[in-house]
Amino acid sequence: MSQRLFFGVDVGGTFTKTALVSDKNRLLAKSKFSSFGFSDKAFFAKALQANLLSILSQNKFTLRQLKGIGIGLPGPVDFQRGVVLSLTNIRGWDRFHLAAYLKKYFSVPVFIENDANCMCLAESRLGAARGASYALCLTLGTGVGGGLILDKELYRSPFFLGAEVGHIPVTLDGPRCSCGGRGCLERFVGNRSLSAKARGIFKKKISLEQVSLLAAKGDPRALKFWQEAGRTIGLAVSAIVNCFNPEVVVVGGGVAQAGSPLFASIRKTVVQHSMKQLKSRIKVKKAALGNDAGVLGAALLAKEKIEDR
Amino acid sequence: MSQRLFFGVDVGGTFTKTALVSDKNRLLAKSKFSSFGFSDKAFFAKALQANLLSILSQNKFTLRQLKGIGIGLPGPVDFQRGVVLSLTNIRGWDRFHLAAYLKKYFSVPVFIENDANCMCLAESRLGAARGASYALCLTLGTGVGGGLILDKELYRSPFFLGAEVGHIPVTLDGPRCSCGGRGCLERFVGNRSLSAKARGIFKKKISLEQVSLLAAKGDPRALKFWQEAGRTIGLAVSAIVNCFNPEVVVVGGGVAQAGSPLFASIRKTVVQHSMKQLKSRIKVKKAALGNDAGVLGAALLAKEKIEDR
Repeated sequence: MSQRLFFGVDVGGTFTKTALVSDKNRLLAKSKFSSFGFSDKAFFAKALQANLLSILSQNKFTLRQLKGIGIGLPGPVDFQRGVVLSLTNIRGWDRFHLAAYLKKYFSVPVFIENDANCMCLAESRLGAARGASYALCLTLGTGVGGGLILDKELYRSPFFLGAEVGHIPVTLDGPRCSCGGRGCLERFVGNRSLSAKARGIFKKKISLEQVSLLAAKGDPRALKFWQEAGRTIGLAVSAIVNCFNPEVVVVGGGVAQAGSPLFASIRKTVVQHSMKQLKSRIKVKKAALGNDAGVLGAALLAKEKIEDR
Repeated sequence: MSQRLFFGVDVGGTFTKTALVSDKNRLLAKSKFSSFGFSDKAFFAKALQANLLSILSQNKFTLRQLKGIGIGLPGPVDFQRGVVLSLTNIRGWDRFHLAAYLKKYFSVPVFIENDANCMCLAESRLGAARGASYALCLTLGTGVGGGLILDKELYRSPFFLGAEVGHIPVTLDGPRCSCGGRGCLERFVGNRSLSAKARGIFKKKISLEQVSLLAAKGDPRALKFWQEAGRTIGLAVSAIVNCFNPEVVVVGGGVAQAGSPLFASIRKTVVQHSMKQLKSRIKVKKAALGNDAGVLGAALLAKEKIEDR
């Protein structure tokens, strides 16, 4: 029997990444294309179709091998009904029955999920949380996203928001957040907030990569900068650790590239603030799948739903 | 067919409460006896046996109607294996295979669970969280305990700790907590911490009940006292709200008797710190079952496990 294939799609504000994944969870091929023009839904469907046919033929696969499609999106979705609830970056997709719409174009089942949940699923199955039944994944970028694996399954909330770790308040009456809350983790360690803080400290425009380079050279201000970010992240992580006791906490995304000064501080803070039964058990790891996590997770989502049937 | 009965037991440091519950979830009878002497395990088993026989005969039931026993305990337990992991108040029970031990004395299945989880189960089935598939329960007493209902089931963590909401850190580097962490919610709103704070404010020994009476009369210091407690609780609750989106948050225990000044402040803080999709949906309610929650939950635990088989 020929290999069964799953098509993973990670819709981003600028680029949409795709991948073919085998039924043995192997990443067989990947591709990407511009997300420009996606407000036109038919255009999105056709662009996706063209990309799929091209990636299949380039790799000598046939459409018949395709068993399902999974799509990760940067916003809340109703996973059960396949409905996009809201998207900041693509206009006109709010309350859009994306899964049903795409069935007109593709002859296989289509599943949609929040992109942070896809990343979390991939890290759980193939990455840094592999083997753990309970795991928390954080992705530190412009936004701070999260996903939670409980008893090997993605946690899905009744209001379709997922584990919004980025919106754990880390202080009373903190700055207002775009989510509607105050003092959220994201308001302190989201890319924009960290960049603004770095400008204040170094008195010039400076990228987070540059701050990391300075930290690697032992610059005390840069080290302190990452240490403080790690403490804030560690406080929010500790809330989840003491309530849900994940076996592993995976931290990924662009900001996680800061590496050891950041991770050492997250670990130290989590150990300080966690219950004694957990201190030696809880592992804080860097995400292992990098930029592939989103497409891999989307494909795995489709695969697992189809195989569960 | 005669009514099927379930025996619920809530083991406390001072008293052990018991109840008979019907298969229709009705509380048929309750009783209590001193927990003195429980370090002797055989004594505990015999005292429980005597109490059971007495409550059955007093209510004209027979032993044959009894289908299961559920026991709530003030410490972490391994629910699956029926093992008490640690207890502060009763010596010699650490790592005790309580369920297996009691099978020698009783001819029906025995299940054990953490007491805060029992309270949460009862509030979920019969109390303030009835009808909700996702709920958070907090019990404010000497300790601050918690339980979480996800998709109608009690959440049980891989390390047997349950949803330790009382040990969510509400500040970095706060005071050390007996759990091993720092800055835990319990260190601020546990009975002892609140009582010490009240003494500091009112410059005399004063009970929390007295502070509540003063608040009811409009005393500004007493109102501010409960408002601040509510803000700290609200901050910890918001972390769970944004991550797990429970439909309802139930707050019970002795400290919850402070009533509206406390609850108004918890609600306001949760609304301020929660995501916009949740502000109007999240309900903060006072526990409905009072002191019966523990025994009811223990009996329901046994009933649901037996009926699931």
